[in-house]
Amino acid sequence: MNSVRSSHPPLRARRLGLHAQHQAIVVMRTDCPACKSEGLTARSHIQVRAGNKCIQAELLQIDTELLPMGDIGLSQAAWELLAVQDGDEVEISHPPALSSLAHVRSRIFGQRFDRTGLDAIIADVVAHRYTDVHLAAFLTASATPPLDLKETIDLTGAMIAAGQRLKWDTAVVIDKHCIGGLPGNRTTPIVVAIAAANGLIMPKTSSRAITSPAGTADTMETLAPVNLDIAGIRRVVQAEGGCIAWGGAVQLSPADDIFIRVERDLDIDTEGQLVASVLSKKIAAGSTHVVIDIPVGPTAKVRTTAAADSLAQTLVAVGEHFGLAVTCMKTDGCQPVGMGIGPALEAHDVLAVLQNTPGAPMDLRERAAALAGAALEIAGVAANGGGKSLACETLDSGAAWDKFRRICTAQGGMRSPGHAEHIQTIRAKHDGVVVSIDNRNLARVAKLAGAPQSSVSGIRLLSKLGDAVVKEQPIFEIHTAVQGELIYAAEFLQQMGDVIQIEST
Amino acid sequence: MNSVRSSHPPLRARRLGLHAQHQAIVVMRTDCPACKSEGLTARSHIQVRAGNKCIQAELLQIDTELLPMGDIGLSQAAWELLAVQDGDEVEISHPPALSSLAHVRSRIFGQRFDRTGLDAIIADVVAHRYTDVHLAAFLTASATPPLDLKETIDLTGAMIAAGQRLKWDTAVVIDKHCIGGLPGNRTTPIVVAIAAANGLIMPKTSSRAITSPAGTADTMETLAPVNLDIAGIRRVVQAEGGCIAWGGAVQLSPADDIFIRVERDLDIDTEGQLVASVLSKKIAAGSTHVVIDIPVGPTAKVRTTAAADSLAQTLVAVGEHFGLAVTCMKTDGCQPVGMGIGPALEAHDVLAVLQNTPGAPMDLRERAAALAGAALEIAGVAANGGGKSLACETLDSGAAWDKFRRICTAQGGMRSPGHAEHIQTIRAKHDGVVVSIDNRNLARVAKLAGAPQSSVSGIRLLSKLGDAVVKEQPIFEIHTAVQGELIYAAEFLQQMGDVIQIEST
Repeated sequence: MNSVRSSHPPLRARRLGLHAQHQAIVVMRTDCPACKSEGLTARSHIQVRAGNKCIQAELLQIDTELLPMGDIGLSQAAWELLAVQDGDEVEISHPPALSSLAHVRSRIFGQRFDRTGLDAIIADVVAHRYTDVHLAAFLTASATPPLDLKETIDLTGAMIAAGQRLKWDTAVVIDKHCIGGLPGNRTTPIVVAIAAANGLIMPKTSSRAITSPAGTADTMETLAPVNLDIAGIRRVVQAEGGCIAWGGAVQLSPADDIFIRVERDLDIDTEGQLVASVLSKKIAAGSTHVVIDIPVGPTAKVRTTAAADSLAQTLVAVGEHFGLAVTCMKTDGCQPVGMGIGPALEAHDVLAVLQNTPGAPMDLRERAAALAGAALEIAGVAANGGGKSLACETLDSGAAWDKFRRICTAQGGMRSPGHAEHIQTIRAKHDGVVVSIDNRNLARVAKLAGAPQSSVSGIRLLSKLGDAVVKEQPIFEIHTAVQGELIYAAEFLQQMGDVIQIEST
Repeated sequence: MNSVRSSHPPLRARRLGLHAQHQAIVVMRTDCPACKSEGLTARSHIQVRAGNKCIQAELLQIDTELLPMGDIGLSQAAWELLAVQDGDEVEISHPPALSSLAHVRSRIFGQRFDRTGLDAIIADVVAHRYTDVHLAAFLTASATPPLDLKETIDLTGAMIAAGQRLKWDTAVVIDKHCIGGLPGNRTTPIVVAIAAANGLIMPKTSSRAITSPAGTADTMETLAPVNLDIAGIRRVVQAEGGCIAWGGAVQLSPADDIFIRVERDLDIDTEGQLVASVLSKKIAAGSTHVVIDIPVGPTAKVRTTAAADSLAQTLVAVGEHFGLAVTCMKTDGCQPVGMGIGPALEAHDVLAVLQNTPGAPMDLRERAAALAGAALEIAGVAANGGGKSLACETLDSGAAWDKFRRICTAQGGMRSPGHAEHIQTIRAKHDGVVVSIDNRNLARVAKLAGAPQSSVSGIRLLSKLGDAVVKEQPIFEIHTAVQGELIYAAEFLQQMGDVIQIEST
């Protein structure tokens, strides 16, 4: 690669407010001398420098006056990574050669990955030097043939090494994970409260929604601040034993966040990638023990007991290599958990369970108690087989609720999840039994209602599979912050037909 | 997939003039109800409908007033595919499931491709339903393990079937191809002229430059119009026996144009993909015989004689399956051909050879005569071993030049390639021998000078490897249409140091 700077004058940064997820994009004029001199064409990958920051970005070109001559438009990711202001000077050049791609090519041509190669690849991924083309090639090459145990371990290690890593001065650090989330399955805040109330250390980081109406971080944010940095996580956990923070603010296994979108696009879930993805986050977070919820069901990520067992075996083996004890629990993956769909509505379910409110969703309580129970057992706080009942006691006594409030206070102050201004009740058209719930379309209605951007919006289920209902009985509600969104959601629902089907008895 | 139309109002089309090669991109407001109701996030792949046209596009989102609420910004590819006007109504929705991806996944998980699967994949690729992620996964999966002969044949067949196909009422239709072009290797116009002058049918389509200072179509366009449609090609070939048209105006194996960019990004050239790419275009063009120039050299695409022989064997075998006779010629791939780099400058080289001008580049003449000679032999017009001398005679007699002028007239009228307004001469700093020519940086200077957009711009070499030069002797010239570009190019050159190295003797 040639290191000579081009002779064209620097460009002026212009914020476009253009969102493309992680991808940094820059927009330049087709007739700009910088593009010509560098021989840059649309969709080239280029290096962009501002001050002492240097990133890689995809180039798009524009031939209209939307972008004045001499300006370079920056997407939101580029803007934030470069930390520039409007009008700052920006220089572009060809990117250095992507030498780690040689390791991807080697695997394509029949070799196995080794740790050195995976370290180089993951370092480039994390530095956003891999385009979609490179990412897809890496993930595809990783699947043919499947990663063996050594490669899975090396990938996990490389993913851990590419990010930050937390250390805790304690023998047992608990974590939990759910493989392929179910709608409403917000056990995390409850499990953390129970575990911490029993003296365990559980520094939990969670994600925000990408395509769903709520992620655990979105739900928790209606109850307390979640944007904790590493110092914040450490402070809360030292004070209370547990936290429920947003993982995006800390760089634990950051490659995973980049792979997720591409894996979803390709719909290739390989065991090796999945295991490296899950465990690298947990190990980077400093966990010593992790309880993994594997929902099994015909429409869940894991469809058969045999697949769940094979996955569990690899999780345990890779965990062992890194000194992480993995406990897998197969659970029912057939229907949503709790009543709420949407950040605040799910938070109300969590509060109801923690506060032992009459009518609290028992399925959510049961799942949370089982997972917390497993954590209590592996930490030696409960005898084998006695974990779940200790977890239930911790809920019943109010100790979990007390601990949860203290965690919220430590995270910056407990908040009230709030309630929607506008509620539309959907009623049963006739007597009968609920025989199916269309989760996918319920989630669409919840998003149409404004979730997760509007935290109070979403769906509140009033009936579940097998419930007997009478004509005109409310079966679910649409909650929105704004009347307009209620109209959108209701119109969509009308076009859709019944998302909850009731069979006459 | 849900077929219910959303309730949001249609969006208004807005031309952005945004260039992203083949990729259709649409830009919508982050706060637009259509995005919310469909649950669409940045970088989703969406379906876009306007009137009776329906395409797939990548979604980007924008949070600034650059795009008014209710508008949808369309990239140039989206604009042209939808054939809309500013303000036209556009509807968006989720795209239908990409079912052909199942065949890609099957190969990832160990199966071989069959014709049915490849037909489905290529149909989706040509309809722009594959994103970069999908394209990269397909190309990577095709390389591990390498395509076998049957898969290569099936891929070639699928690529032919996905585009237009020309038919000619003649027993012999000649084509030529060069694997991995050398700078200045503009043999095509000369070969076509010689072949057609000897009564052969040679309907040649060529590409424009993507990253180089000139493609054959760019060079030819300085001599005659090249934007011929299929009827135009047919008319010219019926009248004169040959044409040199731009391939982009006719849809011959259109998947190939889409794969090229991704293959370049990945730098994985597999024999199967290369063979399918080259031969599908030739077979779709209706060729019966093709002469393939395989330059072999340390920096060429094919680096060893053994690799050239293996490639030639596969080319011949796949060609045979489709009734195409393939003749491969290994040639010297060590240095540029001719004197000009840039459309008009290369055209002057071509004219000099055709007109037998004293000082015409002999290397270009020799290569063209050898390739044309092979064509004359396989067509039975020359005896075996007598092709090249017949080709030279055709040049010497002026018959090739006469035929070339007639082809140009038939394509719409012969043009003069023109000359640059501004020329800067670079001179030897001392006596010596030319020991190296930095082709890559010479190409950069040519592009900086304005090639290929400015057809008269580029480089004219005045010395080649092994030439003895004296101090102050001109060694090359920079040609530009605009003084400003001469300054850019000259400044770049000054920073670069010597692109032509002279060793003192």
